[in-house]
Amino acid sequence: MNNTLDQFKEYLHKMRQYDHVLTLLYWDLSTLAPEKGVEARTNAINYFSTEAFRLSTADEYGKMLHTLSEMEVPPRCASAADCSRDSENALRCAAAAEQFDALDETMQLTVKRYLRDYERFKRIPEEFYSAYTEVKTRSERAWEKAKRAADFSLFAPHLEKVISMTKEYVQYMEPDEDPYEVLLDMYEEGMDSATIDRVFDELKEGLLPLLKKIEESGRPDLSAIKGTYDIQAQKKVQDMLLSYIGFNKDAGATAESEHPFTTDLCIGDVRVTNHYNEKDPISAMFSAIHEGGHAIFGQNIDPAYEDTALEQVNMMGLHESQSRFYENILGRRISFWVPIYDKLGELLPQFKEIPLDTFCRAINDVHPSMIRTEADEVTYCLHIILRYEMEKAIFRDNTPVDELPQLWNDKMEELLGIRPKNDGEGILQDMHWSDGSFGYFPSYLLGSMYDGMFLEALEKEKGSVDTILEEGRISEITAWLNEKIHRYGSRYTSAEVLQRVCGKELSAQPLLDYFNRKYAGLYTFNI
Amino acid sequence: MNNTLDQFKEYLHKMRQYDHVLTLLYWDLSTLAPEKGVEARTNAINYFSTEAFRLSTADEYGKMLHTLSEMEVPPRCASAADCSRDSENALRCAAAAEQFDALDETMQLTVKRYLRDYERFKRIPEEFYSAYTEVKTRSERAWEKAKRAADFSLFAPHLEKVISMTKEYVQYMEPDEDPYEVLLDMYEEGMDSATIDRVFDELKEGLLPLLKKIEESGRPDLSAIKGTYDIQAQKKVQDMLLSYIGFNKDAGATAESEHPFTTDLCIGDVRVTNHYNEKDPISAMFSAIHEGGHAIFGQNIDPAYEDTALEQVNMMGLHESQSRFYENILGRRISFWVPIYDKLGELLPQFKEIPLDTFCRAINDVHPSMIRTEADEVTYCLHIILRYEMEKAIFRDNTPVDELPQLWNDKMEELLGIRPKNDGEGILQDMHWSDGSFGYFPSYLLGSMYDGMFLEALEKEKGSVDTILEEGRISEITAWLNEKIHRYGSRYTSAEVLQRVCGKELSAQPLLDYFNRKYAGLYTFNI
Repeated sequence: MNNTLDQFKEYLHKMRQYDHVLTLLYWDLSTLAPEKGVEARTNAINYFSTEAFRLSTADEYGKMLHTLSEMEVPPRCASAADCSRDSENALRCAAAAEQFDALDETMQLTVKRYLRDYERFKRIPEEFYSAYTEVKTRSERAWEKAKRAADFSLFAPHLEKVISMTKEYVQYMEPDEDPYEVLLDMYEEGMDSATIDRVFDELKEGLLPLLKKIEESGRPDLSAIKGTYDIQAQKKVQDMLLSYIGFNKDAGATAESEHPFTTDLCIGDVRVTNHYNEKDPISAMFSAIHEGGHAIFGQNIDPAYEDTALEQVNMMGLHESQSRFYENILGRRISFWVPIYDKLGELLPQFKEIPLDTFCRAINDVHPSMIRTEADEVTYCLHIILRYEMEKAIFRDNTPVDELPQLWNDKMEELLGIRPKNDGEGILQDMHWSDGSFGYFPSYLLGSMYDGMFLEALEKEKGSVDTILEEGRISEITAWLNEKIHRYGSRYTSAEVLQRVCGKELSAQPLLDYFNRKYAGLYTFNI
Repeated sequence: MNNTLDQFKEYLHKMRQYDHVLTLLYWDLSTLAPEKGVEARTNAINYFSTEAFRLSTADEYGKMLHTLSEMEVPPRCASAADCSRDSENALRCAAAAEQFDALDETMQLTVKRYLRDYERFKRIPEEFYSAYTEVKTRSERAWEKAKRAADFSLFAPHLEKVISMTKEYVQYMEPDEDPYEVLLDMYEEGMDSATIDRVFDELKEGLLPLLKKIEESGRPDLSAIKGTYDIQAQKKVQDMLLSYIGFNKDAGATAESEHPFTTDLCIGDVRVTNHYNEKDPISAMFSAIHEGGHAIFGQNIDPAYEDTALEQVNMMGLHESQSRFYENILGRRISFWVPIYDKLGELLPQFKEIPLDTFCRAINDVHPSMIRTEADEVTYCLHIILRYEMEKAIFRDNTPVDELPQLWNDKMEELLGIRPKNDGEGILQDMHWSDGSFGYFPSYLLGSMYDGMFLEALEKEKGSVDTILEEGRISEITAWLNEKIHRYGSRYTSAEVLQRVCGKELSAQPLLDYFNRKYAGLYTFNI
């Protein structure tokens, strides 16, 4: 039995090498590879993806998974103290230790999760998998062009194919399930549309009146911030912010890319990118804090989980909760900036002339706008609700592709009171659907709702976040998140994490409370 | 037959994916990977190296190589014109085209070269190969420590093992050959110690009196250049220089590393690194020109050679000739700087205060010094001759490892008239021997000798290099090198290249002529 376990561990280690290499191939493609190197890179990605797919669907692997999953694991004592009290128990414990020593909870969970993945992937014909991969690649390129041209018709036939093949893909994996439920579960294990409907409705109901009140109060004067900001200095600001929130430079790296992202090569090598704009230093600051939040999660997973399923956090809601906790819950309050605002002024001298109050007013400028990635933390929620409703229209109502732009625009008007002038600032703005990532969008907002709950739990345990931040003790918050969330990787589902950390199930109320506390005073309170 | 050829091409394409990935893994390790990511990276490198070794020694591969190498290839017409004149020939040509269409000269050379590699590698036991790889890795680490501590005793036992295993390695590959000859040939195909002895002696004889004359004239006053130079500005200087000499940014990338190097992922993706020092802007400038020269070679290989042996230029002498042509033959003359000296002053304002003459005097400051990589172009030759003599002592005379430091110091005194104060600035300065790269050093000087000959040929065809450079027509020189050398990749050996480009065999005389013309006037002539 131990033999199978050793073989399995070796097999996982081998599969991990392919993950490592594919992650690096993509990272380098997005950050450094030149135009003329793209074809060779695509060849390498295709080759190693196919090899990885073969490894993850090999009969040999399936056999190991089945053998290990069918192993009966005798009950273990909770502690050595238990053993010493009960000699029979101690004997069973010793026998267990000998026979099943390495099949601890980590490996049990790994076997369980990988067996599910194996069964799912095994049902996908290899030719279908390749064809789907190719269709998505072509669709991504078509989307880029369509977005630049603000012309949905260039993208529509590709989107249609991606939608139908994604349905097929998911049906191979789980023939008896509703496809959209499978997708939601893929990005956030255990999540379903009933739960999302409940909390999104709860949130929408609370948000719309708050947004109306905020809008009536008018927008802040941002003219003091207008200007040109040196890119090199902005990079130093990024370094300063990353180090302030607890990003470990010895276990990570930074680079530039078209869109900011975080990538995990392993626990000791988690990287973030950023994108700089001379005219907008604030955007890169908040991208740094956001991606830094993702990276702090990845860097603080228990090293004992290396080469196991628990190292890979595919629960995107939980992951987004960490990036958004740093970005919004911490980063957009004045107390976050108190200990470092002088440093910011040293690096970007223009900020010496901008009072901290003005700066904080600017980073909390709530108003309806067209583009999700540029939206403030309040209207952002509505951008996600819109996308979730669109995805239900696509997967449940089978709304024809050519009707989607109009539907998008109508929903924008209904939720945010504005209407896109063209599809470039409407339905074409995000890349997610072009590569088949349906079901991903809700994760962002689920993450924010978790954050409302985490904030509540944190303040209950540690007292006012503003006090902690003002006193320059942000590392205590990071340590709390490490201890409560990060170190467990994907050991617990998000629902389990909420129970463990907050003692209750998902609710939109804490996030609403946070928004109301922050914005009810219409920018005079707590910012 | 065509079937075997198609299979072979597919196999080459597969092997190329491993090359691509290994190159990227090393590149990223040297430029970006954080400390805590090194172990995971080493695992990945070991895994994919072993896979690549297996592919390159697989029976299946050997069979294809043998089948293809034994194929009789009917003579082909030299040109279509020949065919139309001679109907019999035309028929044979058509038949050949049908039967052997794709086995053109490129594939014939590829089969021949890879068959030789296959036969060599096949003789190496896999366990020995792994053990040797591990010993070299450990030895590199020991060398780093020993160099920092300037303590040869920390390195000696590792060096001893690397020497004996390198001898064994080479004897596996070519049991009937002298090991050092095999090593020389590995780094410069067709080269042997008889040729090197002849030209190195010729050079030494000419150099020593010239060096004496230069030394008697005293050193230039470099105080005007002392100062602190902004690193960001130095990076912009690198971009400017790379673009000036013809580096194609769409087919390459740049990064920072401890030691500058060039890496070829494919013809469309050739990358250079640099290392910056606030106190010494000139070092990074000449590293940029040097690595840029390597990269221009790699970027201009005929794309038809992709996935064949001709794409890989393992002839290090020829490769160094291209980097050193840009760095020394072009980069160290005043005419090179005439069109860009104002730009340099715009990027690094201190240079506005330094007359071009003074700058050119500084970049041609010939004087004996301890460190090879910091040496001027004249004394550099003696650094290489010293290492070549040391390698002969190691491989031919079997000089014991503990006698090597003394031998090094004696040779420094004999050739350069100076004696290292410790082994850190003596025998420990270079990393080459720590990873078994014996036989590599002569390439640097062979490259310079080729350069003397290329310069002669270039001026014969195109007129004075100084005129071309002064008139801002450096792209014509790059085009000449592209046409004469780069596009052929490794199709021709260095000896063949010299015959084709210069119409004669290797000689030290043209390099000596260049030195004498440049330095005979003791810095008053032509710089």
